[in-house]
Amino acid sequence: MSRPEMTKEYLESIKGSIPYEMKPFDVKNPNTSNFSTNKTTLPNKGIIRDKRVSLKEAIIQSGLKNGMTISFHHHFRSGDKTIKTVMEIVKELGIKDLTIASSSLTDAHNFLTNFINDGYVKALQTSGCRDTLGKFVSEGHCKTPMIIRSHGGRGRAIESGDLKIDVAFIAASSSDMMGNSNGKIGKSRCGSLGYGIVDAENANKTVIITDNLVDYPNKVISISQTHVDFVVEVEEIGDAKGIMTNEIRLSSNPKEEIIAKNVTNVITNTELFKDKFSIQMGTGGASLSVVKLLKKEMIDKNIKASFCLGGITGHQVSLLNEGLVEALYDTQSFDMIAGESIATNPNHIEISASMYANPHNKSPFVNKLDYVILSALEVDTNFNVNVITGSDGVIRGAAGGHPDTAEGAKISIICLPLIRGRLSCVVEKVNTIITPGHTVDVIVTDLGIAVNPLRKDIQDQLKAAGIKTITLEEMQKFAEDIIGKAKPIEWDYSKPVALIEDRDGTILDIVYKVKK
Amino acid sequence: MSRPEMTKEYLESIKGSIPYEMKPFDVKNPNTSNFSTNKTTLPNKGIIRDKRVSLKEAIIQSGLKNGMTISFHHHFRSGDKTIKTVMEIVKELGIKDLTIASSSLTDAHNFLTNFINDGYVKALQTSGCRDTLGKFVSEGHCKTPMIIRSHGGRGRAIESGDLKIDVAFIAASSSDMMGNSNGKIGKSRCGSLGYGIVDAENANKTVIITDNLVDYPNKVISISQTHVDFVVEVEEIGDAKGIMTNEIRLSSNPKEEIIAKNVTNVITNTELFKDKFSIQMGTGGASLSVVKLLKKEMIDKNIKASFCLGGITGHQVSLLNEGLVEALYDTQSFDMIAGESIATNPNHIEISASMYANPHNKSPFVNKLDYVILSALEVDTNFNVNVITGSDGVIRGAAGGHPDTAEGAKISIICLPLIRGRLSCVVEKVNTIITPGHTVDVIVTDLGIAVNPLRKDIQDQLKAAGIKTITLEEMQKFAEDIIGKAKPIEWDYSKPVALIEDRDGTILDIVYKVKK
Repeated sequence: MSRPEMTKEYLESIKGSIPYEMKPFDVKNPNTSNFSTNKTTLPNKGIIRDKRVSLKEAIIQSGLKNGMTISFHHHFRSGDKTIKTVMEIVKELGIKDLTIASSSLTDAHNFLTNFINDGYVKALQTSGCRDTLGKFVSEGHCKTPMIIRSHGGRGRAIESGDLKIDVAFIAASSSDMMGNSNGKIGKSRCGSLGYGIVDAENANKTVIITDNLVDYPNKVISISQTHVDFVVEVEEIGDAKGIMTNEIRLSSNPKEEIIAKNVTNVITNTELFKDKFSIQMGTGGASLSVVKLLKKEMIDKNIKASFCLGGITGHQVSLLNEGLVEALYDTQSFDMIAGESIATNPNHIEISASMYANPHNKSPFVNKLDYVILSALEVDTNFNVNVITGSDGVIRGAAGGHPDTAEGAKISIICLPLIRGRLSCVVEKVNTIITPGHTVDVIVTDLGIAVNPLRKDIQDQLKAAGIKTITLEEMQKFAEDIIGKAKPIEWDYSKPVALIEDRDGTILDIVYKVKK
Repeated sequence: MSRPEMTKEYLESIKGSIPYEMKPFDVKNPNTSNFSTNKTTLPNKGIIRDKRVSLKEAIIQSGLKNGMTISFHHHFRSGDKTIKTVMEIVKELGIKDLTIASSSLTDAHNFLTNFINDGYVKALQTSGCRDTLGKFVSEGHCKTPMIIRSHGGRGRAIESGDLKIDVAFIAASSSDMMGNSNGKIGKSRCGSLGYGIVDAENANKTVIITDNLVDYPNKVISISQTHVDFVVEVEEIGDAKGIMTNEIRLSSNPKEEIIAKNVTNVITNTELFKDKFSIQMGTGGASLSVVKLLKKEMIDKNIKASFCLGGITGHQVSLLNEGLVEALYDTQSFDMIAGESIATNPNHIEISASMYANPHNKSPFVNKLDYVILSALEVDTNFNVNVITGSDGVIRGAAGGHPDTAEGAKISIICLPLIRGRLSCVVEKVNTIITPGHTVDVIVTDLGIAVNPLRKDIQDQLKAAGIKTITLEEMQKFAEDIIGKAKPIEWDYSKPVALIEDRDGTILDIVYKVKK
């Protein structure tokens, strides 16, 4: 028998004896013999060696068309300039009916109302929004309801294909010509690119937008060239000072000091508070005050934490630098100190939003949390939490990692003032459920500590330590005895304006149009 | 209008107005209302908080069954102990007909012949094999042909789903209880886990096997807990000294010194040899001798390289430490020096096999190579290269990154002695094509330099520099005038024993059973 010709027929004839679906021929050229000795042209050696184009060229070459979905990250928060930069070119190119899937939207994005009115944007998918844009959405000006997902829920939606991104635009504080990029180097340092990483890895086309093009190879790779199609240089991607907003400050409010004391009492008097405990501290005023109190307890009792998770601030960086915590896992750097630390301290580790909280991967980091401290707009007597709609029903917040950490952590602690303005923050039924009550373990206000009845273990531990608790009903009554019951919001139930997606993709609640 | 009940029907009724495929209900519990206020049981807080099990338990719980595919990495090369450890338990459990998809197989895996004979293993997919196992495969003892893929081709096959891994077993020199793991810390340090990363991220179940369980959290994460199902502690995963085999040494052979001189002449007399050039140096004797010569030229001409790629040895680490190269991108650490460097030098960067060379991602690093130096068993006058079958037709090598870098690099240089034993290494037609001739630019032997006629640019540059070239036909004639033509191998063409897959999944060549 002579050596068989490698014809298609021959290859198919031996297919039966091999253990996989053979693809013997190039699908693009099914009639080509692939016996390469006959090839007389060179392969395109190195193929693409420079991905730099103008933003306009990137958008054109990405194939962006009417009706597609584009994505952004919100690591620059109020300082973001990238969505505007991109949308101006989208407008110039006359591309309409886009869905904007940003990891969140801030007051930097109020300009989008014009783009929605003019038909360039037909839908928003985001962790939340606020300010003029929140009001605009709540007044029913969008063609289709906004979809609100937690950070982990968004990671799940993207990785599962529920949220298909046609073109991701990723602002990066440094990139080389091939798209190796990060948020750690450059004048516009924002720290972790945790949200952008998921987009870059899963979008059909990925565009890196940078104001700091560095020589190849960029040695700090948060997003690798293997996921990037185009690199665009612009004047400025964002103002890193904008990542620190009012939400992130040390408390000076006396109510918050009481709340912080109560939170610290819960933590330090439960069994999980021991060497190598883990915690996410949140960024609200009260939760940050906890840092000071907790730090003292840790030093006094010689307890060191294993890791802090989530949005990372300078306060956790101090804990790391002082040896009170071993590692920080950072999906979003919340101030300039965190931004610098993640760039220089190998124990301050960048993680993607999927690593952080996608409930469908094999172990999101939220599942290893002992404690999480979270703030809220209102809670109800079923322990449900609302962090999205205000007392007027208008969207003015973001789900963030709230539902993710509440469900993952062994003890989730929600803290909020009992009364804000002329309203009780503990109500019979929250306007909008963002974090379901069965995932919430403790609610703390300036009036006291309420433990979810499902968590008898926590109640017992606090009781044994002499820490008093009260019920949410008692809190509600106390507040309403002073200020009365709030008037119910008048929604227009014929017009849903936002769907609240639970972490797993089910619909948890709906926000309706507010009546003006 | 009152607030609508969140019934399934209602959610479906508003589906038309929202821009995505809504999944309003848990697919597992379609009849459950997901309005979470009614839930009265706690979620499983933190779910899995410790993944440690015995190897036997891991295999049982992974659901491994007859006929499935398991995978391994070969970072320990001759020192690997993991495949044997796993296969002993597989045998104990009586699981049969497995396909072993290892990134490569070495002389540490000769024991597999028994497992094939006894029916535990029915097929092998690998970059190559050698020694007793290579002979065994070549003699036709496997039920189905072995599939040979390059490292990039394997990455592509795994990520595209062509190669579906049911259970990946990843030896790691350190891991925590959740599976955050690496090859950089611990007594069994092997350096980069470049091959294992792809397996871990894409396998249905991933088992980390470690002999160095560290406290949670392991702060150096090559493979993240988000991709790991089980963590298994064993006595020893491998002998890191085994990663340095005969292939990796500094040359002392005079023929190789001549070859190294020729290779250096090609590099230093082509236009790409300028500041910020990039290079993969291979691990063969001659290619390593090039380091010494090239280094001198770099210093003399004040030229610094931007990066070295691929299998990294102590020689490239020296270049990095001396500031002659900016960064090392390491998919496989080839000696203890490289293993230490990747653990400590932030400019020595671990990359996965997919980042290295998957031809279907957006830019594998091989595509940014200027030069690659590769060795070979034989070449033919069409510039095709064989690195798998010996002159007796027996499988005794591995494709490795050979076809990947030859195709990606701007100038691929293959070096080999003109005569080995009583045989010419330049022949009319290689026994087995691993790297197709149209991707090969220069072939260097101790007789001289041959440039692919397709690369007139290289020929011109060398001519301008006064470097003489000869043809492959001249080399072949010179050798055969001395030692005559080799007797053709007698294959049994009725029995294919190995299919050579090209990088894109097409079949490039077939190895047949050797006649004894």
